[in-house]
Amino acid sequence: MNDFIFHNPGKVYFGRNQIENLPNELLKFGKKVLLVYGGGSIKKNGLYDTVTELIHKNGMELFELSGVEPNPRHTTANKGAEICKKEKIDVILAVGGGSTIDCAKGVAAAAVTYDGDVWPLVSGGKWITEALPIIAVLTNAATGSEMDAWAVISNMDTNEKIGLGGSALIPKVAFENPEYSYTLPTYQTACGAFDIFNHVLDNYYLAGDATFDMILDMQEAVMRAVVKWAPIAMKEPENYEARANLMWASSMALNTVLDAGTVHGCACHAMEHELSAYYDITHGHGLAIITPRWLTYILNDETAPAIYRLGVKVFGIKEGLSDKEGAKGAIDALSKFCFETLGLKSTLTELGINDEHFKSMAEHACTGSVITGPKDLTPEDVENIYRMCL
Amino acid sequence: MNDFIFHNPGKVYFGRNQIENLPNELLKFGKKVLLVYGGGSIKKNGLYDTVTELIHKNGMELFELSGVEPNPRHTTANKGAEICKKEKIDVILAVGGGSTIDCAKGVAAAAVTYDGDVWPLVSGGKWITEALPIIAVLTNAATGSEMDAWAVISNMDTNEKIGLGGSALIPKVAFENPEYSYTLPTYQTACGAFDIFNHVLDNYYLAGDATFDMILDMQEAVMRAVVKWAPIAMKEPENYEARANLMWASSMALNTVLDAGTVHGCACHAMEHELSAYYDITHGHGLAIITPRWLTYILNDETAPAIYRLGVKVFGIKEGLSDKEGAKGAIDALSKFCFETLGLKSTLTELGINDEHFKSMAEHACTGSVITGPKDLTPEDVENIYRMCL
Repeated sequence: MNDFIFHNPGKVYFGRNQIENLPNELLKFGKKVLLVYGGGSIKKNGLYDTVTELIHKNGMELFELSGVEPNPRHTTANKGAEICKKEKIDVILAVGGGSTIDCAKGVAAAAVTYDGDVWPLVSGGKWITEALPIIAVLTNAATGSEMDAWAVISNMDTNEKIGLGGSALIPKVAFENPEYSYTLPTYQTACGAFDIFNHVLDNYYLAGDATFDMILDMQEAVMRAVVKWAPIAMKEPENYEARANLMWASSMALNTVLDAGTVHGCACHAMEHELSAYYDITHGHGLAIITPRWLTYILNDETAPAIYRLGVKVFGIKEGLSDKEGAKGAIDALSKFCFETLGLKSTLTELGINDEHFKSMAEHACTGSVITGPKDLTPEDVENIYRMCL
Repeated sequence: MNDFIFHNPGKVYFGRNQIENLPNELLKFGKKVLLVYGGGSIKKNGLYDTVTELIHKNGMELFELSGVEPNPRHTTANKGAEICKKEKIDVILAVGGGSTIDCAKGVAAAAVTYDGDVWPLVSGGKWITEALPIIAVLTNAATGSEMDAWAVISNMDTNEKIGLGGSALIPKVAFENPEYSYTLPTYQTACGAFDIFNHVLDNYYLAGDATFDMILDMQEAVMRAVVKWAPIAMKEPENYEARANLMWASSMALNTVLDAGTVHGCACHAMEHELSAYYDITHGHGLAIITPRWLTYILNDETAPAIYRLGVKVFGIKEGLSDKEGAKGAIDALSKFCFETLGLKSTLTELGINDEHFKSMAEHACTGSVITGPKDLTPEDVENIYRMCL
C-alpha cells in the first residue's frame, strides 16, 4: 500500500436551497467579482439572472467574461486575466460546467502573474500555489473541476490540450444544485456521465500494487451510480435523484477521496486529450470510444481478474467464468453501456477522425516516454489503440 | 434527498514515511508547541522520542500536558488551557488516540476564552469557531477525532460526558502511520474497531428519507473493511494492511464523506455516552453491547429491509429470506462479530453495571425529549434498551 496525502479544503453547498449562501461566500474575498460563463445557456435557464441579482443586491461590483469554449482556450483565459489585473478583481465566479470552471482556473492563475499569460504556466507544468480565489456554480456533472485541483486548457495554435494543476486552483466553494443541470442536452449528459466513469476507472486497481479494498469498493460504488443514474437522467432530464447522483459522483470522482493509496493513472485521459486537442470533440465521447479498446489492449493474465471484478461489481455480469472470459464479458458490458445505453457513436471514423495525426498524437500523449498504468503504454501502443478506435 | 454542506479542510499524511513533515506543519503556526499525550505508551513505543526530537531539532519550544485519561476530563483540558495562556502556545500537538485528541480539542477551545474553562463551552453546546490550531499524530484507529469537528469531554463530578463541536476543532493536520498502532492491546483494537463500525451504522439509512445509494454503498464498504480487518489486526498486531485499513476507516467514518445527504443519527452513541460517563467503561465496548439490542428494539416493517441489507452487504448473510427473518439474521451476525470475533463481553452485568442509574441515564441521553433516528427513542425506550443489555 502506498503512502498518500489527503487534503481537499473545498467547501460544497449541495442541494436545492443553497444559492442564497453565495453572496456571503463571495464577500469573504471582496466586492469585485469576475463572472465567467460559456455560451449563454445560463441566460436561458435563469441562472444568470439569479446570480447577478444576488451580486448586485449585496453591493458587489460585477465584471464578465463570457463565451468560454467547450474546450477552453488559453486566449480566453488570458482575456479574463487582463480584466482581473485591470479591474483589481477579488474573486472569480465560474457559472457553468467543467470547461467554464477550468477556464476560470486559468484566469485565476494567470491573473497573479506578471504578464497575465496562462500558457507558460500550462506548458511549464508549474504547480500553482497562488491564484485568485474561485467560487463555482456547477451546471453539468462531468469533469470534477468543481472540487479538484486541475484545469485543462487548449492551445489551438499548437494543437495542445494540457492540464494545469495546483492546490490554489481548488474552488474555495462550489454550489451544486442538481436542478441547474435539468436543461442539459441528452448528448452532454451522456458524455459527462462517461467522463465521471472514466475518472474513477483511470484510478481503479487493475494491476500493480494493491490498495485499500474499501477504496476499491467505493470506486465501484461511484461507477455503479453512474451506470444506474445516467440513463435515467437521459430519459427524464428533470429527475432530481438522477441529476443529484451524477453531480455528486462528478465531485467524488476527483476530490481525491477515491485516490487514497491508489496508483494514480490517467491512461485514457492522456490519450483522449490528444483527440480533443486536434479535433475539438467532446471529451467524454472520446473517452467512451477509447476506454473499451484500452481495456482490450491491456487485457492479460495480470489484469484479467481485476477487469472481471469490474464487470461483476459494476455491470452485474455473472461470476464463475475464467478470468479471461470474465474480463471479455466486462469489456462487452462496458461497450454496451457506452454505445447502447449512453447512445454514443462507437468509432472515431463516425466522428470524422482518420489516422492522419495518430503518430504525432501518440508521441505527444506519451510526452516522449510512456504513459504509466496497469500496463505502461509506449507511443506505439497508443497508436495501436487509436487504430482500434477507427 | 436532503441538502447538505460538505467541508473538511483537514489534511492527512498517511503512511510509513510521513512524520518528517511534522516540523514544517507545526512551524506554519509558530514555535511554541504544547504536546498533549496520555498514559505514557508513546514513551514505550518510541514515538515520544521521535516527535520531541523533531521539535527540538527544528528550533521549537516544547511544553507538555501528559496523563490524559481514556475518557478525558474537563479538568485536564483546563490544565492544558492554563499552560497555553501562560506560555502563549502557538499550536497544540496531540499524540495518541481519540481521547488525547479530544482533550487537545478541549484545550484548544478553552485556551482562547477569557477564563480558560472548557466546561461552559461543553455544557453550553456552543459551536466552536475559534480555537488554537491542533495537529494530531494518531496511534489508535477508533474515534475519528483525527479528522472530525468533535470532542467528547467528561465531567466526573456531574457524571456528564458531552460532545464539544466546532469547525475550529478539526485538526489542521493529522499524521496516520498504521505502525503507530502496532503496540495497541487486543482489547483496545477490538473496542476501537467497533467504535468505527458504529460511527458508520449510526448514520446508515435504516428508515426515513432515502439518501444517495452510492453513499450507502460506501458506508457498507467501510463497515466491511472493519469486519474483515479487525480480527486480523487482533491476531497479527503488526499486520500493516490490517492496521492501515482500520486507521483509514476511522477517519473515513467521521470525516463527513459518508454523511452526504444522510439523516444524521447518533442513537447508540447517545446511549453509550451515559454508560461511560457513569462507569468509565471503554466506549467501543459499551457500543458493542448496546448496538444489537438497539437494532432488535427498532426492528419493524419499516426498518427490516434496511437491517437485512446491512446483513447481506456487510456480513454476507444469505439473500431471499423474508425481511424480518433477514433482519434477525443480520442482528445475529452483528452480535457474533461483537461477542465472538471481537471477543467482547456481551452484557453490562459482566462489566459490573446494574440498573441503578438507568432511569436518570435514559433521561439524560434524551436531553429531556427524544433521541431522533430511524425510530425516535423516548427515555422509556432507552431504559428498555439498557435493560436488554443486562
